[in-house]
Amino acid sequence: MRITALAGGIGGARFLRGLRRARPGDDITVIGNTGDDIWVHGVRVCPDLDSIMYTLGNAISVERDWGREDETFVVKEELAAYGVEPTWFGLGDRDLATHLVRTQSLNAGFSLSEVTAALCQRWQPGVTLLPMSDDRAETHVVVDLESGRTAIHFQEWWIRYRAAIPALGFPVIGIDDATPAPGVIEAIAEADIIVLPPSNPVVSIGVILQVPGIRAALGKARAPIVGLSPLIGAAPVRGMADACLRGIGVQTSALAVAAHYGSRRDGGILDAWLLADSDDSMLADVRALGIVCQSAPLLMHDVDATAAMAHAALALVS
Amino acid sequence: MRITALAGGIGGARFLRGLRRARPGDDITVIGNTGDDIWVHGVRVCPDLDSIMYTLGNAISVERDWGREDETFVVKEELAAYGVEPTWFGLGDRDLATHLVRTQSLNAGFSLSEVTAALCQRWQPGVTLLPMSDDRAETHVVVDLESGRTAIHFQEWWIRYRAAIPALGFPVIGIDDATPAPGVIEAIAEADIIVLPPSNPVVSIGVILQVPGIRAALGKARAPIVGLSPLIGAAPVRGMADACLRGIGVQTSALAVAAHYGSRRDGGILDAWLLADSDDSMLADVRALGIVCQSAPLLMHDVDATAAMAHAALALVS
Repeated sequence: MRITALAGGIGGARFLRGLRRARPGDDITVIGNTGDDIWVHGVRVCPDLDSIMYTLGNAISVERDWGREDETFVVKEELAAYGVEPTWFGLGDRDLATHLVRTQSLNAGFSLSEVTAALCQRWQPGVTLLPMSDDRAETHVVVDLESGRTAIHFQEWWIRYRAAIPALGFPVIGIDDATPAPGVIEAIAEADIIVLPPSNPVVSIGVILQVPGIRAALGKARAPIVGLSPLIGAAPVRGMADACLRGIGVQTSALAVAAHYGSRRDGGILDAWLLADSDDSMLADVRALGIVCQSAPLLMHDVDATAAMAHAALALVS
Repeated sequence: MRITALAGGIGGARFLRGLRRARPGDDITVIGNTGDDIWVHGVRVCPDLDSIMYTLGNAISVERDWGREDETFVVKEELAAYGVEPTWFGLGDRDLATHLVRTQSLNAGFSLSEVTAALCQRWQPGVTLLPMSDDRAETHVVVDLESGRTAIHFQEWWIRYRAAIPALGFPVIGIDDATPAPGVIEAIAEADIIVLPPSNPVVSIGVILQVPGIRAALGKARAPIVGLSPLIGAAPVRGMADACLRGIGVQTSALAVAAHYGSRRDGGILDAWLLADSDDSMLADVRALGIVCQSAPLLMHDVDATAAMAHAALALVS
């Protein structure tokens, strides 16, 4: 069975670990969001690809849930001592090695797809990890700062401001000229099942969907598409999806996100939707959108629980 | 008093610490060798400039004599785990921050001179540190490997092979097109005293002398030029100057190095030469070259001893 997943970073990575456990014999391809990518201190950082790679490669920090286990921050301290900005970016020493290898390879002319495949040789994530695009397309956030209205990089909003200043929009600079990375359209077209993990619907999945050609490929894919709600009640399963949804005027509920993605029947991207058992009351309204819907526990507190979530989601379209 | 010194890395840095102690009120400008510079893992490393900066900034590792005190090597280990070469280069984590700042600044269009001045803002070396050139000109070493005769980067010969394979020559790739960095010619022309520390006469001072314009500027400088022997008997004060001298067919003795530099009377660069007291027997032969010569203890075992060396050298031309 060929399963293709669109995924953001930490939440997506955690879900994928469960999916891999749930479907050990299947061939899983992950299309990762690269809208979060950033040049920082001269190196290219791909937070979502790395979260997936480290998580599935059993190298993610269990305590922090991002970056590497046994991490140190010597270089970051030294950069701060030089007074160079940004000081808010959590650049770990082990993690930095990944970015150095990536940066040097990119500068040598390799594509991000090629570099990602090379990095995965070390981590053996057990999935095929594809960036959504090899082109630079970075998510920004329109905000009102004291200095006036401006657009800052998503990472600055997310990390420096902890998504605490209202987002007025999420322009993805460069997205119109981006093309899907090699294998992305094929992974969608040839999949037997397509999964949207409980990743951020705005800045993770929502950005992948903006790569020209990807939404259309999903529309005509022969595989059913099943998504998992990133919200339980009005709270995100993890991360700060609520702050992002407010920024695009979508209510923070599993129903509203399902409606935002839309039914394939009506030109959307969902055939089925799994929401939290505590959100049972929304089942009928989601179904009324033309989307198959069930509920299940959606807390990814361990790999087994997450595998059960994956099972439940796939069962909706199998 | 304006003192200008031409200097290599570790030995030069150590001497400069003594010189600064010996002449606290003087205005010292250091023209640093950049022939050792290398791009490694995508960052620009300037070993000699950094040795000077760290040593005079009291941040050099006392134990290792290169790189930073309290250094860690996490990034280096990780790069090795990725299987990327070179693995022989001693890239410390603290040190790496310097290279990241430098690389990003160079890539932003700043010159090496500008970047060096900016880095020195943090380290406050108490001297004006100028690279010999802002242009890329890197020393290579012609060697016979099993695969045949080839030229490898100086750092590879020095660190990976520990200068243990015979050098057949030291071509400095790019030197013909290099120009002295801003301030270098002025520092030579306007100096009251010019000093050649006991740095490597081949790959440190010898490379600086190859930058078009620098040797001529020394020739017509109004200041006297005094050098200190990098050899005591046939052994280098520190480093592997002997292996380098063999590579250019110069005997490993204080006399031979003085003759190699030559007297200014005959188109060379020395007015005076300080050699080790144990090399007293060479005094007459050096003087016969038209070079003022005295002897003194030349072991730089602490700052006071090194200051005494500096005093003795400057006394030759004061």
